[in-house]
Amino acid sequence: MLSDRFRTAVEERIVGRSPELFREDATFRSPVVFKPYEGRAAMLVILGAVLQLFDDFHYTDQVETGDVAALAFSTRVGDREVNGIDFLHFDADGRVRELAVYIRPMSALSTLAEEMKRKLEEAGAI
Amino acid sequence: MLSDRFRTAVEERIVGRSPELFREDATFRSPVVFKPYEGRAAMLVILGAVLQLFDDFHYTDQVETGDVAALAFSTRVGDREVNGIDFLHFDADGRVRELAVYIRPMSALSTLAEEMKRKLEEAGAI
Repeated sequence: MLSDRFRTAVEERIVGRSPELFREDATFRSPVVFKPYEGRAAMLVILGAVLQLFDDFHYTDQVETGDVAALAFSTRVGDREVNGIDFLHFDADGRVRELAVYIRPMSALSTLAEEMKRKLEEAGAI
Repeated sequence: MLSDRFRTAVEERIVGRSPELFREDATFRSPVVFKPYEGRAAMLVILGAVLQLFDDFHYTDQVETGDVAALAFSTRVGDREVNGIDFLHFDADGRVRELAVYIRPMSALSTLAEEMKRKLEEAGAI
C-alpha cells in the first residue's frame, strides 16, 4: 500500500528524518489547532517532537483506497491512553501531500497539547 | 463498499433510526471520553443527538480495506468548523461492530462536548 513507507518510518521512529516521504509543499493538520502548518520542514519538526512524547506506540489498523489512507494507532502520553488516526493524502508520486492527525479522548488531546507546547518552546520552534 | 450503507444513513440523517446497520452488541467510542459505550441502543441515541448539532455536514473521503473503513467529514458546530473521522469495524454480515469518532481541532471538540452534554441531559439520557 502507498501508506506502507510512512507507517514503517513512524514505527522505526525515523519519520522526522525522512523528508523523501513528503512533498515540499506538504500540509500538516494538527489535532489541536485548526490552522494548518504549511511545508515539509514544519511537518518534520512536529512529527519528530510528537513521537518523543508517545510511549508504546503501535498501529492497530491500516486502510487505503486510491491515494487516501487512514492509519489507526494506540499509544500513551504520560499515564494516559491515547487513540489516534493519521489521515493521509498522497500525490501521484506516492509522497504525502497532506497529513491530518486526530486524537481521542479529549483528556489525552489536552495533555498532548500541553506537552507539545512545552517541547516546541524548548526547541525554540515557537 | 461495506461502509456505503452507513454513509448514506448518516447523509440522509436517518442513522439514529437505522438499528439494522449495527450489531446489538456494537461498541461506540466517543471523541470525548475514553470509556466506550456498549450496545446498539446507546449508539443510536448518541448518533441521533450529535447529528442534530452538526450543520453543513458532508463526507470528504471514504477509505476501506477488508472489514475496516474510515470516513472523513467536515461540518460546523455553531460557528466552529469541525473535521472528523468515523472509524468503523464491520462483522462478517456487514453490520457495524465498532464505531470510533475523532474530532479536530481541540476547540471544536470542546464545544461539541458541551453541546452534547446539554442535549443528552435535556433528553434525560444521562
